[in-house]
Amino acid sequence: MNNTILMRALRGEKVERTPMWLMRQAGRVLPEYRQLKAEHGFVKMASTPELAARVTLQPIERFGWDGAILFADILTPLMPLDFGIDFAPGPVFARPLEGAADLHRVKEVPAGGLAHVEEAIRLVLQELPPECTMLGFAGAPFTMASYLLDGGGSREHARLRAAVYSGEAWFPELLERLADMTIGYLQTQIEAGCQAVQLFDTWAGLLDETTYRRYALPAVQRIFRALKGKAPLLYLIKDGAHLFDAMLASEADGLSLDWRMPFAASRAAAGDLIVQGNMDPGVLLGTAEEVRRAALAVLDANAGRPGHVFNLGHGLLPQTKIENLLVLKETVHSYGNARV
Amino acid sequence: MNNTILMRALRGEKVERTPMWLMRQAGRVLPEYRQLKAEHGFVKMASTPELAARVTLQPIERFGWDGAILFADILTPLMPLDFGIDFAPGPVFARPLEGAADLHRVKEVPAGGLAHVEEAIRLVLQELPPECTMLGFAGAPFTMASYLLDGGGSREHARLRAAVYSGEAWFPELLERLADMTIGYLQTQIEAGCQAVQLFDTWAGLLDETTYRRYALPAVQRIFRALKGKAPLLYLIKDGAHLFDAMLASEADGLSLDWRMPFAASRAAAGDLIVQGNMDPGVLLGTAEEVRRAALAVLDANAGRPGHVFNLGHGLLPQTKIENLLVLKETVHSYGNARV
Repeated sequence: MNNTILMRALRGEKVERTPMWLMRQAGRVLPEYRQLKAEHGFVKMASTPELAARVTLQPIERFGWDGAILFADILTPLMPLDFGIDFAPGPVFARPLEGAADLHRVKEVPAGGLAHVEEAIRLVLQELPPECTMLGFAGAPFTMASYLLDGGGSREHARLRAAVYSGEAWFPELLERLADMTIGYLQTQIEAGCQAVQLFDTWAGLLDETTYRRYALPAVQRIFRALKGKAPLLYLIKDGAHLFDAMLASEADGLSLDWRMPFAASRAAAGDLIVQGNMDPGVLLGTAEEVRRAALAVLDANAGRPGHVFNLGHGLLPQTKIENLLVLKETVHSYGNARV
Repeated sequence: MNNTILMRALRGEKVERTPMWLMRQAGRVLPEYRQLKAEHGFVKMASTPELAARVTLQPIERFGWDGAILFADILTPLMPLDFGIDFAPGPVFARPLEGAADLHRVKEVPAGGLAHVEEAIRLVLQELPPECTMLGFAGAPFTMASYLLDGGGSREHARLRAAVYSGEAWFPELLERLADMTIGYLQTQIEAGCQAVQLFDTWAGLLDETTYRRYALPAVQRIFRALKGKAPLLYLIKDGAHLFDAMLASEADGLSLDWRMPFAASRAAAGDLIVQGNMDPGVLLGTAEEVRRAALAVLDANAGRPGHVFNLGHGLLPQTKIENLLVLKETVHSYGNARV
């Protein structure tokens, strides 16, 4: 199972066509997902192994993507810790993190606390086609700190930014603790059968490069160093074109490019690192012709270089037209067939 | 009145200290603003000349900034057009823009439709200290299109992005019409007494550089070409570090730097253009020491080069500590005194 086309591409091998998966492929745009969600609600879906496995498999059954990504909430690893997290529908914390005195509650998840995630992965693997790769994920420490401090859906990230500029030692310590918690979480996913994992740094783009390097980057490096060699390690910063040089120092095996990072220049700078992503998910709200144009722009810019995985620059938008996903698949698949 | 320290800096002249104003200085953080807002509500404040003038002057009275920026909503020039705009509290459109058939409603504001803005500017000028500069502003066409298509507070900008990738001619035509409307609006502000104007492109950072150059940039250039020489023209893209090279082609007289654009490199690339901005407004949620450090980082990076205006990388956050604004002023003012 480590010889799927996606795993071979993630090892930098030459492959017969560009493998593809899409961030947020599980959920959101699929009628079969919406139906499950209407029946069970998001929280139950993310916490019930059978339902999480079902949602993980839905886009594979419909589109045959080369990778299946675990359906879970970014806050899943924090749920067993003592924050009293509930969704209403955004996350609310009965016992929020306020400062240094609460840091002890950010710790490794107690044994058995993630059994439902392990079980979901095992259930997916029972049904996953052998040519499809199982992917795990977690939020990066700075991004997790954002949720812990400001909850979900914050626009201004006021408590997070106050913490960054507080000049106090508790904020770097929080990031280090979140890194250690995340190492355990990703290790659990890898042991349960995830073949590659991606770290999502949704909010790191809030920081200028100097501040990113001071706080967010060391925590990311800590995770990748601990997991190096256990599975290919991918890293995404949303809206972080200004942090690209710093991403190169993240110790990831592969970088997921936001659509605002220019593909050709990023690819060249990334050297031997795996590169994925980059197509604007907004294009999938447009015409089939624009979808073809945008996909070909990425494929042409890669120019057949090994170590390339097709993906979007960020997650699928809920308003995505399903027929455009079929156009996208056809474009990427036929490109490979024609040229390699 | 064109010899204020800010106007001299905007002409690139050597000045005795770095002049400063802050985006969103009018409103939000001031108790005297909050009191007015509680009494009258935002919509009435923005549309009543006496109240708009009062709010514009409040930060000048309290802090003595070198520029006063007109208090108005970014949608103000659209209010007299036939969209049935109301605030509840975000903007809602009784007759929204749906597509090509609605374009005729985007047009120059009818005579008298902006009389309350002209009157607000005149009232400010009656009370403005002679050493303070009066600044006007407008939203850039792509950003205005975002509000017209998706309303306020959209996270995904789905209708805007669908329009960009629709491959249809009506979207560029919409931007051109918004540009022409904006030329008239800014001209009105300049004739009423604004000495410099800034165009805010809050949402252009959503676009990759190629798409920005195809759609958003030509509409911005159209505005700056029409107004060139009438007043110094400033341009801000929020979160647009990846668009900095394209901003250089905007034909603005000065660029307002987001905090994620590195100051020294941007300053060097900007050549003879005026440069302002760059300090992360998030720092003002932190300690006085961090405020001093961040302000000095910008001032040091500028290294005494003329044509520099101190400002933030984006607007003041509502959670800003007022005492930090005093620290910021003291840091910028004493820097000038010590070194020039």
